[in-house]
Amino acid sequence: MPIKTDIGALNCSLARVLGLLGDAWSFLIVRDLLLGSSRFVELRESLGIARNVLTQRLVTLEAGGLIVRRGSDRRPTYHLTDRGYELVPALVHLMQWGDRWLADNGAPMILRASDGVPLDPAPALQANLQAVNPREIVVTAGPGADERTREWLGAK
Amino acid sequence: MPIKTDIGALNCSLARVLGLLGDAWSFLIVRDLLLGSSRFVELRESLGIARNVLTQRLVTLEAGGLIVRRGSDRRPTYHLTDRGYELVPALVHLMQWGDRWLADNGAPMILRASDGVPLDPAPALQANLQAVNPREIVVTAGPGADERTREWLGAK
Repeated sequence: MPIKTDIGALNCSLARVLGLLGDAWSFLIVRDLLLGSSRFVELRESLGIARNVLTQRLVTLEAGGLIVRRGSDRRPTYHLTDRGYELVPALVHLMQWGDRWLADNGAPMILRASDGVPLDPAPALQANLQAVNPREIVVTAGPGADERTREWLGAK
Repeated sequence: MPIKTDIGALNCSLARVLGLLGDAWSFLIVRDLLLGSSRFVELRESLGIARNVLTQRLVTLEAGGLIVRRGSDRRPTYHLTDRGYELVPALVHLMQWGDRWLADNGAPMILRASDGVPLDPAPALQANLQAVNPREIVVTAGPGADERTREWLGAK
């Protein structure tokens, strides 16, 4: 994607979204902010992303109105905006598609509404998600979680 | 993304999906197949994608079970599988997010269920989409459609 071909210039809102997000890192940064990370170092360690790439993606996400920066310039925290939270159902759907087709050991993470009800896998996802405030999604380790994921989720 | 950093190796189903899809092209190929394209040349012209990139993405999507190839080896057609169609709600959600936030002239494309009811924009999307068979989604030009998009949609 990195955008020689300028996908975002296609006359299509899907292409524009993908052009804005740039690549998978942006999806995963949104994931991490959803799951409770807020600091640069948390994002960098969770994702194993290069500093310069993370910096660039955060700038893009902020410019696109998906995240806001708070706190001091030296130690800012990053937070999803309403616009950012609006992407969450798409991310959850993609994640659960992956749980279904790409997770031989079971789902690494289980997403629940704040009342503890797991978000159903697709195709029932839509019915379930409409009743869920994405700000209140709770994540726990699933059967496919490795040690690092367990630690990471346990630390929140 | 192209996968120096091996995003797909992260213990996360979202990362695995994104690692499989590789980049925005795969999303847009799925879009085109959903909208009725089936031939290599149609995909290439619609997306303005390089032949070798398109070839590689089709191989990946086929290996991932999202599409099947039919017809002769010389003139195959490509079709979404059930697994491929399962991604559609996420794509529709991303597209409608783009309609909402990135389409100054309005949506380029309007998606409707086969009964003619437009798929609602997020957040009502989920409630609406659950009743819609993704195989029966109908697409028409929206207020933000340019000439090329109109022609392309009109040709189907």
